[in-house]
Amino acid sequence: MISDRYKSYKRIYADNAATTKMGKSAIDAMLPYMDGIYGNPSSLHSEGQKAAEALVNARERIAACLGCTAREITFTSGGSEADNQAIVSAARLGERKGKKHIISTAFEHHAVLHTLEKLKNQGFEITLLDVHENGLVSAAEVEQAIRPDTCLVTVMYANNEIGTVQPVSEIGAVCRERGVIFHTDAVQAVGHLCIDVQKQNIDMLSLSAHKFHGPKGIGVLCARKGILLSNLIEGGAQERGKRAGTENIPAIMGMAAALEEACANMDENAQRLTSLRDKLIDGLSQIPHSVLNGDAQKRLPGNVSFCFEGIEGESLLLLLDDKGVCASSGSACTSGSLDPSHVLLAIGRVHDIAHGSLRLSLSAENTDEEIEYIIKSVKEVVEYLRGISPIWRDLVSGKKEFIIK
Amino acid sequence: MISDRYKSYKRIYADNAATTKMGKSAIDAMLPYMDGIYGNPSSLHSEGQKAAEALVNARERIAACLGCTAREITFTSGGSEADNQAIVSAARLGERKGKKHIISTAFEHHAVLHTLEKLKNQGFEITLLDVHENGLVSAAEVEQAIRPDTCLVTVMYANNEIGTVQPVSEIGAVCRERGVIFHTDAVQAVGHLCIDVQKQNIDMLSLSAHKFHGPKGIGVLCARKGILLSNLIEGGAQERGKRAGTENIPAIMGMAAALEEACANMDENAQRLTSLRDKLIDGLSQIPHSVLNGDAQKRLPGNVSFCFEGIEGESLLLLLDDKGVCASSGSACTSGSLDPSHVLLAIGRVHDIAHGSLRLSLSAENTDEEIEYIIKSVKEVVEYLRGISPIWRDLVSGKKEFIIK
Repeated sequence: MISDRYKSYKRIYADNAATTKMGKSAIDAMLPYMDGIYGNPSSLHSEGQKAAEALVNARERIAACLGCTAREITFTSGGSEADNQAIVSAARLGERKGKKHIISTAFEHHAVLHTLEKLKNQGFEITLLDVHENGLVSAAEVEQAIRPDTCLVTVMYANNEIGTVQPVSEIGAVCRERGVIFHTDAVQAVGHLCIDVQKQNIDMLSLSAHKFHGPKGIGVLCARKGILLSNLIEGGAQERGKRAGTENIPAIMGMAAALEEACANMDENAQRLTSLRDKLIDGLSQIPHSVLNGDAQKRLPGNVSFCFEGIEGESLLLLLDDKGVCASSGSACTSGSLDPSHVLLAIGRVHDIAHGSLRLSLSAENTDEEIEYIIKSVKEVVEYLRGISPIWRDLVSGKKEFIIK
Repeated sequence: MISDRYKSYKRIYADNAATTKMGKSAIDAMLPYMDGIYGNPSSLHSEGQKAAEALVNARERIAACLGCTAREITFTSGGSEADNQAIVSAARLGERKGKKHIISTAFEHHAVLHTLEKLKNQGFEITLLDVHENGLVSAAEVEQAIRPDTCLVTVMYANNEIGTVQPVSEIGAVCRERGVIFHTDAVQAVGHLCIDVQKQNIDMLSLSAHKFHGPKGIGVLCARKGILLSNLIEGGAQERGKRAGTENIPAIMGMAAALEEACANMDENAQRLTSLRDKLIDGLSQIPHSVLNGDAQKRLPGNVSFCFEGIEGESLLLLLDDKGVCASSGSACTSGSLDPSHVLLAIGRVHDIAHGSLRLSLSAENTDEEIEYIIKSVKEVVEYLRGISPIWRDLVSGKKEFIIK
């Protein structure tokens, strides 16, 4: 049924939440440090000092994009490491004051949830807030959950599967008011949404460069002055002694360039992406017994997430791939797992429905024509899969009842 | 006194223990994954699967270079992370059996020593073996130190400052015999010395790509099948669930290429480097009141480490830099620290002598002419610094006694 015609001449990448294509400016920023300027920034000689200057420069530029100071930036190997270090650091600070309660949400990334699980085994109490069917928590709910022994609130800025954007500024204000550290996993948000940690009362923020057309293997933990970080990696005195290991200067320079470019084009890209996104949502909504996951407006400009009744997400992806469309069922980090997405379960999708999920995450490189092609392809593939699905037959014949009306 | 003549036309890089220049093959191996093949290896679509194939390929090639299986390779962000994870993992395994004693040496890298310090605070007992004046421990000393509650022996393969190469195979055999996990920080050794973890009875080995002309920000923890790793970074299911975070495919491909090239040219390079090294040692030995640090033979082919009485290492480096020579006093990771090197103290150098240290670490790119120039430059700079040193005046006048005869 699937034709190879399209595959042969074009691929459509709509999985930018998994990873993005590096931008030319990021690659160009890395190359000189891969080839000519290769010194270790800890070395006293000129080759080392050139690298040290690059490190200072990148740190300042990244800080400027986030609204913090250069000293508040710690370079990590990526978003997961930054999430881990942020949460463990806040927990250690809390522990010293006898505060061992942490508030988060049920649909955080596993880098957050699994770290919280580890802390739970160390005697911490974790409250996971409901994210409701629209995939949103409110600042009021955070406020209600705060206790005298709460040492940390960690709520992701934008969800990696369904793209919903939390009221981060409001949550930050509540936490600041109550004297509780607020961390946000902003891996999906940085480079896509306007962020200012100071204005938004964010105490700690994690980001990953490869989510905004920067290199893989590099990220940032931004932590407000005064918050003492605990080391995950012990060793040399790099990063003010808080993260050991020779600094990855090429990747750091690539990240700085990618972030600056993303911030410079943010409004324009967001407008364009929102229009492409809404067109895609409109098109896919025409498929019977389908449902958009997460709030229709309060979502990332490039995120589209649907569930289709009576089909299996993995088959959908493979057939879309045959048609040249790169998509995802949920997060890339849990692909290959047979469990349904914890994010979709958290917004109330039942197992059967959560299994039939599709995430399309767009970049500024996607075109109107591509959106039309994606809509057409998804419609064809869903129809085809339903045609061969025994569950669908039961639903249509009335033997089983539709969940998505 | 220092002429800019040489600086203007040539720089000599002799700080390869701090970091190396990336090889062309490593850069060429990275570029396609920075630009065209950018998928997330966890993604099911073709773009993701191409990245996943690269990951499998790199893992197999790296395993072949180390004498282990692909499954025994865990990619980390570098040598420090690998050291931390190896040691913490062995400690957790030991803890469960009530074994909380660890054997190491006094001159390990800080990634090892600081991790051991952390474990000490958690109730572990640490025995640091003497490394003697020649910078070597013996397998017999390791054997004597092993107790029924010893859960780990961690001894570095080659020291990062003085380059001495430990009898790793013998230590491995002792540990295997006694049923104790043996980890070696092989960051300075991999790509420079022939390694086979299976034949050498190494249970865990850490390496870092940027020490053998590979990229920064990537390393490996090689852990024998059956040794359960503890996560330092929690999150997605990458690396068999033992190290979360999107895999840094470009860096991994660059590392595989660099390691293969280093192994292919190992004998030839070692021979050439040994000859350059010994020429450099001969030349610098002519400087009065100087001493070579570490055994003259059992050392890395490219490592030269000296102490010169009556001078201060930092000034030596800065003046050598003016002459176009990039060198180091000790490890790059502790440059900027005013404390004398713990490595030099461990081999018995007193504070004053340890402060006057110089490490020159060569690569296959260095030439005979460069060695001659380095010898000439070091002689000039040492003579100049002694000329302006009050300590030297006291030594020469007999007011103080020479320590290095």
